[in-house]
Amino acid sequence: MKEIGLNKVVQIIDQADNILILGHVNPDGDCVGSMAALSLGLQSTGKKIAVWSDEPLPQKYRFIEMEFEKPCNASADELDLIIVVDTAVETRIGANLDFNHTKVPILAIDHHISVENNFTYIHADQSYAATGCIIFEILKLLKIEISKSIAEAIYAAIITDTGCFAYSNTNYRTFEITLELLKAGINTSEITSIIYNSHSPEYIRILGAALNSLELISDGAGAIMYVSSEMISRENLTNFDTEDFVNYPRSIMTVKVACMITESPDSDTLRLSLRSKTEDYNVSKLARLFNGGGHKCASGARIKESLFEFIPRLRKELENFLKIEHKKLNK
Amino acid sequence: MKEIGLNKVVQIIDQADNILILGHVNPDGDCVGSMAALSLGLQSTGKKIAVWSDEPLPQKYRFIEMEFEKPCNASADELDLIIVVDTAVETRIGANLDFNHTKVPILAIDHHISVENNFTYIHADQSYAATGCIIFEILKLLKIEISKSIAEAIYAAIITDTGCFAYSNTNYRTFEITLELLKAGINTSEITSIIYNSHSPEYIRILGAALNSLELISDGAGAIMYVSSEMISRENLTNFDTEDFVNYPRSIMTVKVACMITESPDSDTLRLSLRSKTEDYNVSKLARLFNGGGHKCASGARIKESLFEFIPRLRKELENFLKIEHKKLNK
Repeated sequence: MKEIGLNKVVQIIDQADNILILGHVNPDGDCVGSMAALSLGLQSTGKKIAVWSDEPLPQKYRFIEMEFEKPCNASADELDLIIVVDTAVETRIGANLDFNHTKVPILAIDHHISVENNFTYIHADQSYAATGCIIFEILKLLKIEISKSIAEAIYAAIITDTGCFAYSNTNYRTFEITLELLKAGINTSEITSIIYNSHSPEYIRILGAALNSLELISDGAGAIMYVSSEMISRENLTNFDTEDFVNYPRSIMTVKVACMITESPDSDTLRLSLRSKTEDYNVSKLARLFNGGGHKCASGARIKESLFEFIPRLRKELENFLKIEHKKLNK
Repeated sequence: MKEIGLNKVVQIIDQADNILILGHVNPDGDCVGSMAALSLGLQSTGKKIAVWSDEPLPQKYRFIEMEFEKPCNASADELDLIIVVDTAVETRIGANLDFNHTKVPILAIDHHISVENNFTYIHADQSYAATGCIIFEILKLLKIEISKSIAEAIYAAIITDTGCFAYSNTNYRTFEITLELLKAGINTSEITSIIYNSHSPEYIRILGAALNSLELISDGAGAIMYVSSEMISRENLTNFDTEDFVNYPRSIMTVKVACMITESPDSDTLRLSLRSKTEDYNVSKLARLFNGGGHKCASGARIKESLFEFIPRLRKELENFLKIEHKKLNK
């Protein structure tokens, strides 16, 4: 693995004619938007570009001008370059290809913290809110015109990864690039509406049931909410993504630490998500009590215990954690 | 009432030394942010500025550097100018003053459609996403430096009125002004978090109960949701704001028209909110069936009927409306 700067990235891409673009598993708006913007931009210069994915393009991103092709090992050897976007972890690549046998150089472009890997080159810049922003910089350096379709793809990338400009990764360059995208004539509210108004009825119903389970402790400083396997099966689902449910208890004014527990459909495992509003309440410490870990404001754990046995244990540990941290702050 | 341009607004403000700033009832982020930015900016030039309001500053806007004073008719005569921000409707002014007796000129600065009124001057520009953006333009024309506090106030105004850059009023100038605010060193994610993470536990619980009432009709094209007086009294509340609940059924992918019914605490009246995703389904037509009205994508009505008598009637009318509009679209 060789870390390279943006100019070297541009040089490598410029010299390749036949390029394959890959993303990560569970492709999100930043992944899809980055793949689309890069492929549209490079196609406009006459290069031969393919975009491969094992998974279909999620419904809510189908307004983005791009088609996923099914991966095919046979044609991989004709390539000059493979570009992986929005991840630098080999096992997270969204196409089941045998990378050990290919002699084609692989370049990863990402905005996450990079870990050791076997890619030929890596360009990972955490100062960018989205990989889509890095793709924007690359296209500009290649003097490729930002068409309306490219701008739509990059805007989708930005709003997905910044929570519509709400998260702390949003910075001056994010807004500066956004202004450039608006110059291409995109309809920002339409894109936002498509991405954020794509819930299933089951999502709304399970969210309702989860909100009903809300329990506040320690004078409202702690919140516990859960989704049981029973709630999921009541909607005739076998699996369900509760990823962002924890934001609801977190949005209560008095809450310092929000906990969301999701029971696996087979009632075998619990997934615990912990969120705090500020680094003052370092929830990774709380996660470690359950053999989990993470960041100061967002941590988690997997627990082999029944939901209603675990809740009293969590309640006790959370009360204790809040008491200790609160005391430290008021010293 | 005399409509005036931005340069005339600046000239009138420049010539006044003792200025009173007023907002509207139920002050929101745009109102509070505009009042604060204008008062801070004009104070920095040595003018005597007062900000009056009958209501206290809402908790979630207390990070904005400003204090509301209680209105006082006696001192009104010493003023050179009264500025009303974010409304041009006299009855909506957030201070119960006797404006008929004052000889002080009143200037309204707003971004809504203006209606006939008795203000001396009015400057209403709908091309701006927020009144806060117009205040920004005024301060720039007055050559007043945009301090961090002023920038925070204007950012609060922008994100409140654009739904964090999601609504269709968001435009190029909105992002351009936002970039200028970032130059003043504001922490955008902190402001967003304070404004959007200020829910009460009751809000979350009633939202949960409302989501549980979700009913889909016409193959998921129509959604009906309600908040009953019983749900409100269960939380020991006498009143409750369900303003944005209709966005949840609207966020379902298949839904064309979302209906939200809120029963008054005394079970006497129903408030019906109707939303559509596109102008193709003009919900003001549906509202008119219940003696209501509004815009193509957002309408409403007040109905004197019991909740559970009204729901079957709404269901029937909604089914019929969707059938007719759907037929028109597929012609």
